[in-house]
Amino acid sequence: MTEKVVIIGGGTAGPKTAAKLRRERSDIEIDLYTQEDIISYSACGLPYFIENIIQNPETLIIRTPEDFQKQNINIHLKQKCLKVNTSEQTVLIEDLITKNKYEVNYNILVVATGAIPVLPNIAGIDLKNIFTLRTIQDGIDIKAKMQQSKKAVLLGGGYISVELLEAFVHNNIQVTLIEKNQQILKMFDEDFAQRITDYILGRNPGQVSILTNEEVVAFSGNQENEVKKVITASGKEIETDFVVLGTGVRPNTDFLSGTDIKLSINNSIKVDKTLRTSKYDIYAAGDCTDNFNLVTNRYIWVPMGSTANKEGRCAAINIAGGHCLFEGILSSTITKYFDFTISIIGINYKEAIELGFQPEFAIVTKRDKAGYMPNTGTVTLKLIADKNTHTILGIQGIGEGDVNKRINTVIPAILEKTKLESFMNLDLPYSPPYSPAIDPVLNAAQIVYQKING
Amino acid sequence: MTEKVVIIGGGTAGPKTAAKLRRERSDIEIDLYTQEDIISYSACGLPYFIENIIQNPETLIIRTPEDFQKQNINIHLKQKCLKVNTSEQTVLIEDLITKNKYEVNYNILVVATGAIPVLPNIAGIDLKNIFTLRTIQDGIDIKAKMQQSKKAVLLGGGYISVELLEAFVHNNIQVTLIEKNQQILKMFDEDFAQRITDYILGRNPGQVSILTNEEVVAFSGNQENEVKKVITASGKEIETDFVVLGTGVRPNTDFLSGTDIKLSINNSIKVDKTLRTSKYDIYAAGDCTDNFNLVTNRYIWVPMGSTANKEGRCAAINIAGGHCLFEGILSSTITKYFDFTISIIGINYKEAIELGFQPEFAIVTKRDKAGYMPNTGTVTLKLIADKNTHTILGIQGIGEGDVNKRINTVIPAILEKTKLESFMNLDLPYSPPYSPAIDPVLNAAQIVYQKING
Repeated sequence: MTEKVVIIGGGTAGPKTAAKLRRERSDIEIDLYTQEDIISYSACGLPYFIENIIQNPETLIIRTPEDFQKQNINIHLKQKCLKVNTSEQTVLIEDLITKNKYEVNYNILVVATGAIPVLPNIAGIDLKNIFTLRTIQDGIDIKAKMQQSKKAVLLGGGYISVELLEAFVHNNIQVTLIEKNQQILKMFDEDFAQRITDYILGRNPGQVSILTNEEVVAFSGNQENEVKKVITASGKEIETDFVVLGTGVRPNTDFLSGTDIKLSINNSIKVDKTLRTSKYDIYAAGDCTDNFNLVTNRYIWVPMGSTANKEGRCAAINIAGGHCLFEGILSSTITKYFDFTISIIGINYKEAIELGFQPEFAIVTKRDKAGYMPNTGTVTLKLIADKNTHTILGIQGIGEGDVNKRINTVIPAILEKTKLESFMNLDLPYSPPYSPAIDPVLNAAQIVYQKING
Repeated sequence: MTEKVVIIGGGTAGPKTAAKLRRERSDIEIDLYTQEDIISYSACGLPYFIENIIQNPETLIIRTPEDFQKQNINIHLKQKCLKVNTSEQTVLIEDLITKNKYEVNYNILVVATGAIPVLPNIAGIDLKNIFTLRTIQDGIDIKAKMQQSKKAVLLGGGYISVELLEAFVHNNIQVTLIEKNQQILKMFDEDFAQRITDYILGRNPGQVSILTNEEVVAFSGNQENEVKKVITASGKEIETDFVVLGTGVRPNTDFLSGTDIKLSINNSIKVDKTLRTSKYDIYAAGDCTDNFNLVTNRYIWVPMGSTANKEGRCAAINIAGGHCLFEGILSSTITKYFDFTISIIGINYKEAIELGFQPEFAIVTKRDKAGYMPNTGTVTLKLIADKNTHTILGIQGIGEGDVNKRINTVIPAILEKTKLESFMNLDLPYSPPYSPAIDPVLNAAQIVYQKING
């Protein structure tokens, strides 16, 4: 009998698992079920499609169902998984077009159902022109609305909101961003969140408002049930043509309730380093799984497209009979606001205190090339290290200069728990168009080390 | 009695040692002697001054003698060190203006005399308009000559020649580069040297000639003793308006011959990790010292401005009574030819074989951002790992995309001997403007790992 692998979910991890598994093994039957009508697309690219940096949404599609069919992978679109029966090794599928329900057998099941938006419980949330951004269709709808609008409200101050803020500002929309916490981008320390806020407000004075410590209590609409006002707890009434909810996501795992598949933080699926769940014949990959943080040695939930890709690949290798361990993550994230890069790796200073480390930090602002070169940009780095072990716990980086290079330079050192005294003399290649003679990231390490060593 | 530190050399490491030492200790007398008439400048910036990307050579000066004087550091210009008497703790100095000679006492001596050009033994080498590039004055002279010339010959195919090639091509000079070995940039594997050569030749067809396996046997001049032709062993006669010799450098240590200061490879000065020489009271830093290669565990000599900075800083900390270890280098280098980055870290494949490793490699060419984003560039990486240990031995990177970020990501992993199976799943931050979901450098690691694991 041919082994039959059933994959549930068509975003990133599912298609990656399917494609890699086929490359590893030609003898396995592979069926992928997704409730959507397209598969294998880059959701991370949607803000740039909305901004109109990308014109054609189809360029976000990595592989079409036809591409998969050529590889002898069966793609089942608009087929939603309702239940998993782990003892019978079956999944219950609903055909979203015909509404028929049917069971499918598996020998190996891969759950890759991703994440779904969390909808806040606010009066008027069902009004028209209140969007979430998850699918390509969402992107098409938001872009169309933006192109005939003058004002927008973004709810929530996470990465997607910052990216949409760029998209809207670039398209001359007046934008109000509303965040219930005291800062946007809560993964950053307060000082860096403030610097980022200052940059955003300073770049297009008058076009952007950022309201923190502010909750939305209601949306009000016109006679056509189109949202027209956002009303906040402090009594503000903000006129708008549309709203995008960037109020977070959660693992898409409700259909697993009642099964013996063990869940983890935020109802993500508990997986081991081979991406296997608590059931021997069920794997999970992507945004629906939990993540092991290699700095804190704790389980967290950080849905990221890059992790989904690696997990899908790794799961496929293991299903194929190979050996791949996905050790964990460093909560690495990056985005930009126009030319201003925003990135954080590991943990911030506040978390370090909360978790019982004895952190020390340095903040440096330096030019990213030799000072006499043209077109230098500045990078501002906050490097956090542990006083006891001299290891790096995290780095935050912002600026119009080449922040990403400095951030990436630290990442293997965080993984390897490299001591500051080694890291600060790291042999980074030097040439005036690429960095100062002593790179800003080494500078930051030197300063933290000196603060620790007194 | 006040402790007296004498520093010989005014390029990079000497001034860095002086400045850092003063920050650490206000009670030490610091005297710096240099044979040049300026100190503390970035020689690495000279090609960009010649290219006229930088107009004013003074911008290359990091600190002036007056800056140092304010910090109570005595700078002695045009004062050449002729001899060191280690038993008497004196140096013999010649005043290059008055020709007077005099002795100076030290408690601690720092030798930071850098490197000097190797002049090939070729008939006609004393003709006018045959230059070497080391000092700011050299840069001024070459730039002035270039601006009234149409043709140039570069001897030697190292980094400086590639940088000068850009400078000359940018200024519409017809350039011939002559290299006696079978490839330019001998630190690269032959395949990558060829790719770089192809890029250079393809960018400005007809304006650049690169002759390899070719030796210059004579320069011939006109009646004013100006060079006019370069004659090669194969009988070529190349007309030119000027010549720049990029035929290598050697440690500037001749004045130490006959002392009991131990020399090392290429007559560089043997130093330990504290930058101390074989004499307890003598330190050395910068291009005149040997280097410990952390990949091969062998001593080599790789003069680099970044290393000089770090060594100067580290020497100063140790002289001040602190503790700083400079563990070694990874032979990291980078340059560019217009928008094309050229970089190598660690050892190449050929060296790996010669040194007894069992290397495997992967070459990947990928876009540096998500494929659907505008303005992507390609990066081509050659990642070399050891089959036995699964550790990374080196990486070569070229391309118009963001090569440097990928290169830097590997560096701590080389230092830490991170295994491929960990590195290939490294949590690099992902966003479409910064990288594909799986970064090219992780891609390269995945492929090498699969080749090793069969």
